[in-house]
Amino acid sequence: MKKKVAIVGASGYSGEELVRLLLQHPHVALTAVTSRQYAGQTVAQVFPKFAHHPGAKDLRFAEPNAELLAKQAEIIFLALPHGVAAEYAVPLLERGCQLVDLSADFRVKSAAVYKEFYAHDHSAPALLDKAVYGLPEIYREQIMNASLVASPGCYPTSILLPAIPLLRDGLIKPTGIIADSLSGVSGAGRTVKLDYLFVECNESMRPYGLPKHRHLSEIEQELSLASKTVVTFQFTPHLIPVNRGILTTLYLAPANHFSTGVELDELNEKVAACYKTLYADRPFVRLLEHEALPDTKNVIGGNFIEIAWRLDARTGRLIVISALDNILKGASGQAVQSFNLMCGLPETTGLI
Amino acid sequence: MKKKVAIVGASGYSGEELVRLLLQHPHVALTAVTSRQYAGQTVAQVFPKFAHHPGAKDLRFAEPNAELLAKQAEIIFLALPHGVAAEYAVPLLERGCQLVDLSADFRVKSAAVYKEFYAHDHSAPALLDKAVYGLPEIYREQIMNASLVASPGCYPTSILLPAIPLLRDGLIKPTGIIADSLSGVSGAGRTVKLDYLFVECNESMRPYGLPKHRHLSEIEQELSLASKTVVTFQFTPHLIPVNRGILTTLYLAPANHFSTGVELDELNEKVAACYKTLYADRPFVRLLEHEALPDTKNVIGGNFIEIAWRLDARTGRLIVISALDNILKGASGQAVQSFNLMCGLPETTGLI
Amino acid sequence: MKKKVAIVGASGYSGEELVRLLLQHPHVALTAVTSRQYAGQTVAQVFPKFAHHPGAKDLRFAEPNAELLAKQAEIIFLALPHGVAAEYAVPLLERGCQLVDLSADFRVKSAAVYKEFYAHDHSAPALLDKAVYGLPEIYREQIMNASLVASPGCYPTSILLPAIPLLRDGLIKPTGIIADSLSGVSGAGRTVKLDYLFVECNESMRPYGLPKHRHLSEIEQELSLASKTVVTFQFTPHLIPVNRGILTTLYLAPANHFSTGVELDELNEKVAACYKTLYADRPFVRLLEHEALPDTKNVIGGNFIEIAWRLDARTGRLIVISALDNILKGASGQAVQSFNLMCGLPETTGLI
Amino acid sequence: MKKKVAIVGASGYSGEELVRLLLQHPHVALTAVTSRQYAGQTVAQVFPKFAHHPGAKDLRFAEPNAELLAKQAEIIFLALPHGVAAEYAVPLLERGCQLVDLSADFRVKSAAVYKEFYAHDHSAPALLDKAVYGLPEIYREQIMNASLVASPGCYPTSILLPAIPLLRDGLIKPTGIIADSLSGVSGAGRTVKLDYLFVECNESMRPYGLPKHRHLSEIEQELSLASKTVVTFQFTPHLIPVNRGILTTLYLAPANHFSTGVELDELNEKVAACYKTLYADRPFVRLLEHEALPDTKNVIGGNFIEIAWRLDARTGRLIVISALDNILKGASGQAVQSFNLMCGLPETTGLI
Repeated sequence: MKKKVAIVGASGYSGEELVRLLLQHPHVALTAVTSRQYAGQTVAQVFPKFAHHPGAKDLRFAEPNAELLAKQAEIIFLALPHGVAAEYAVPLLERGCQLVDLSADFRVKSAAVYKEFYAHDHSAPALLDKAVYGLPEIYREQIMNASLVASPGCYPTSILLPAIPLLRDGLIKPTGIIADSLSGVSGAGRTVKLDYLFVECNESMRPYGLPKHRHLSEIEQELSLASKTVVTFQFTPHLIPVNRGILTTLYLAPANHFSTGVELDELNEKVAACYKTLYADRPFVRLLEHEALPDTKNVIGGNFIEIAWRLDARTGRLIVISALDNILKGASGQAVQSFNLMCGLPETTGLI
Repeated sequence: MKKKVAIVGASGYSGEELVRLLLQHPHVALTAVTSRQYAGQTVAQVFPKFAHHPGAKDLRFAEPNAELLAKQAEIIFLALPHGVAAEYAVPLLERGCQLVDLSADFRVKSAAVYKEFYAHDHSAPALLDKAVYGLPEIYREQIMNASLVASPGCYPTSILLPAIPLLRDGLIKPTGIIADSLSGVSGAGRTVKLDYLFVECNESMRPYGLPKHRHLSEIEQELSLASKTVVTFQFTPHLIPVNRGILTTLYLAPANHFSTGVELDELNEKVAACYKTLYADRPFVRLLEHEALPDTKNVIGGNFIEIAWRLDARTGRLIVISALDNILKGASGQAVQSFNLMCGLPETTGLI
Repeated sequence: MKKKVAIVGASGYSGEELVRLLLQHPHVALTAVTSRQYAGQTVAQVFPKFAHHPGAKDLRFAEPNAELLAKQAEIIFLALPHGVAAEYAVPLLERGCQLVDLSADFRVKSAAVYKEFYAHDHSAPALLDKAVYGLPEIYREQIMNASLVASPGCYPTSILLPAIPLLRDGLIKPTGIIADSLSGVSGAGRTVKLDYLFVECNESMRPYGLPKHRHLSEIEQELSLASKTVVTFQFTPHLIPVNRGILTTLYLAPANHFSTGVELDELNEKVAACYKTLYADRPFVRLLEHEALPDTKNVIGGNFIEIAWRLDARTGRLIVISALDNILKGASGQAVQSFNLMCGLPETTGLI
Repeated sequence: MKKKVAIVGASGYSGEELVRLLLQHPHVALTAVTSRQYAGQTVAQVFPKFAHHPGAKDLRFAEPNAELLAKQAEIIFLALPHGVAAEYAVPLLERGCQLVDLSADFRVKSAAVYKEFYAHDHSAPALLDKAVYGLPEIYREQIMNASLVASPGCYPTSILLPAIPLLRDGLIKPTGIIADSLSGVSGAGRTVKLDYLFVECNESMRPYGLPKHRHLSEIEQELSLASKTVVTFQFTPHLIPVNRGILTTLYLAPANHFSTGVELDELNEKVAACYKTLYADRPFVRLLEHEALPDTKNVIGGNFIEIAWRLDARTGRLIVISALDNILKGASGQAVQSFNLMCGLPETTGLI
């Protein structure tokens, strides 16, 4: 049995990757893709590299139309800019569709926080409560029963998957958390701006968006939920000349009861146990052992996150490092992972 | 008048850049270059891109020989691996040469600390006191009178130039300092190892050397001197697929007397004043203004360091970011800057 | 039903990709992988990015041993340096195994030509006649019945697939053929040499191996077979700073009977018809239409070759351009394609 | 004595490099720079990396105004799009300025050829005869006396400098010349288009502009002048993911009287003699010896062209390869080289 599926806004890098994943998904019939820019053209014309998929030759991009989409598909992926996604969500949910939204529109629970970070009123605040934050490793049950999944992006995923277990288990302090993240250029989307030209990015390394990045809002929300206290968090993103990948280095302070050398040794074991308990059976989390450290080249092209950690005996600080593919585990792969859960399929279907 | 100058160990990336800088330096006669690997070949043969310099055609690489070198040159640059540099320093100093050493051999004042971080006894501990740490922006007077300059490398320079002024002025706490650094691959030297192959580095981002990098020893020494207290410091280096450049992000806690919002505003002004007082007239420090943030592409090929800072009102933390060219301000350019001071020349001679 | 399969020499880039393809192949049980370097370690340890495959945790690299391999596997892939492959081929064939050899050892039919280009005698000349040149689009029937397939590499594939149809149909002259090829650095293999360091390759473009590259021997052999005349051929390979990809530009002279403008228009149609007749139904050949030109980024990660052509009315010359992934269609993907044919499976099994 | 110099259109990559070269030129007072986009800002604000030059802090971009420019400068560089340059040339020449034009507007001698390739009438055809083609190695005397120099770009320079001597000496046939060229992305200018985004260029190799590139017109003109016959020429440009550099591979047929093996040996010597005669004393031409082949990394950042050649005994064809920095010897460096000649200065002033 195949689910009828549509993608709204399939012309960016995440949209393109969704097309690829859903064309080859054994339980998906991709019935509609929309793009104002490419309306009228086939998927094979717009993305020649998918031309060999039988579906790519016949499927034609259309202008987005909620009424029509609701007839064509049961589950719909929204790969739209923030603010725009909410406009489509309301009529599609009303017509009984299930949604996986890749934008930031439904990730924050509080309309006030949304306004603070995105500088405009939320257009569908009633839906904020209904939306499930789409981190399958954390909210598996809720996603299975969701009608609206707010699928998180690359930075939040790279930070939350390593940090939440430690906060939940009380192993680290909820204060003073720092994330220093490196992103490939596809993280900026298929945005035609001077800053993202080859010559401006190649042989360049630079921070950006300091000090108050929009994604802080959802990251702080989830860290606060995990620690049951209000978390304020430090985050510095950098732009690096690679196509894909996120590498995040987290600087964490052990909880107060770990201060002596002996206690730090104990902490080291508890961190390992904490991660293993939560993630050992999760198919997309790779806990690195021995001397291994994350490297984005080992996760590019797959839906995995690599995690490693080091307790620095000199400073008493815990360093946790994660790596993922920003377009897969950081966007489209994670969205399909949630889709699988919503459909009662094994999480890995079409992804491994 | 030209100084007679030699380079010992001129076959790596730093050595090659020294050759370039010294060939075109108006007050240098490059009289000898050594390399076991290239002995017998001319500079023009080994580095075809310098072939147009008249000096490159006649100057021939030789086996290193301290006695001979002491006759050929007044000032000698050592671009050798750590441990090896010290072996040449002793006989050359005895014969009256002045030295600029690019290795780590004379940067640490304590033979015990050296042994802790480099895992062997120092071979010339008596020289440690005599050596001057070659950061011209900090130790200008001492360098002018030095016979042995221990020229610091890329990571220490990118961390110390932004951090020392703030510590000296008591604007930040000496505890809890974190530096997250990104390095281009030339930082690994011309080392023929699997890890540094193009395919292993390109489209890769990865940390390495966690948690106790060797350069911690000299960085902590200099931070301690600046703050007049023992500093333990957190440092994470990452390897990034660019040829050149270091980008360092420093996470700093304001000193205790800056805690309210008003005090943080005041701190912001004091940080600006602190940097301007020390660096406004220094030719190679570029304090960025307004919205500008450091970008390695703006410093590659020059001897500059870019510095910018942001006080994060949400977290109360000070973020300072620096960028420099690891082979120039982080190695050979800085060494020539010290050389200029030793010779009583303007600091910028042959560098701008 | 699954075939028992082994890989001999699985530690290079082609070997690694074979491991990936065969682990996920629905009709393969990967029973043995060999590598002197990694003997004793599991596939998951050597290639962490495959760790999620159930097979990767249990399968352990072994020292290569022909007798043992012949018991473990029915079909064996040889991913060995040239010269070494032949040593394993003889005992494995004697023991009844079928072989897909990715080296150059069995691609040339003439032991004399082999010696001319590889500078030593062929160690198993009797097998040269038995081997089938593994271009599935050209030798489909022969591969289906082969016990020894000599699978061609990236340069020959990128040249032969566009050139053979035109020569067979007599549309171009067999004289004066020029191929100008660009290769990503993985084409050099996982070879730890100064030339392939990141800093030596990045921001570099350079030719190499001029003028008599080893692969000329097999290319000229196949061009001669297609044109039924002895072809001497011009080839210039270049090294380009990308991980993967081959882009070849072919300069071809129309056959003598195409000289006037009208005849050239006619030729244009005949070239299109020629390619369509041979390749329209071949799943891995993508003939580009309209304004589209090959771009390696559209073939990386897949087993496809893109082909486009332009008849230059000003010069009367035919320009044909091809692009492929050097590790897939130029190595391991093509080898699996032949394997599929040998097993009577659809060509695309495990590849799309 | 310093010449008063202005740059019209200084915001692109060539303009930026002109600013750098002219700020540090010992015989230049850079009195004006224009840019509609940056009018009102200082050079230091627009190009922070030049901020250390005393001239960069005071010099402010202005709207272009021919009348004013003619008062401010004696020699003016035009770094404008083709078509626009001609509009400024007429009034500036009338007011007695000397011009170095980096656009294509005055490179072609025939207004008809210009129209054929640029698809519009030339706006100042009377100037075409007056302009000197700015290849200093070929037209040294004419440039010294020119009031309008049409400075050629990267592709023509990389093709003409290797080809003209061989044609002049009758060593190669003027028919069937092929140039296969690879260009870094800065060759497209600071053009904000999807095609030049980092993610679209990185890990991509592709041809473009086939088969009739605009620069064919000037290349064929100069090849025809050198051979004293009408030359039609084959040219394929490719876009490669490097910031800078052009690598050109030329496929040339020896003249008719070189056909036997002995004659080809003789040709080999004549080619060497031909290049040495013309270029041995030219400071920016580097003829490579022995096994060395051009590599763009050896010319980036300098005004040099590397040239090497191989006579292929198997095919009887001469392969000549050249490498240069497309923004320096292929644009701004070459323009300053002509400027030096126009001023009676040594060619290398401010360039080495």
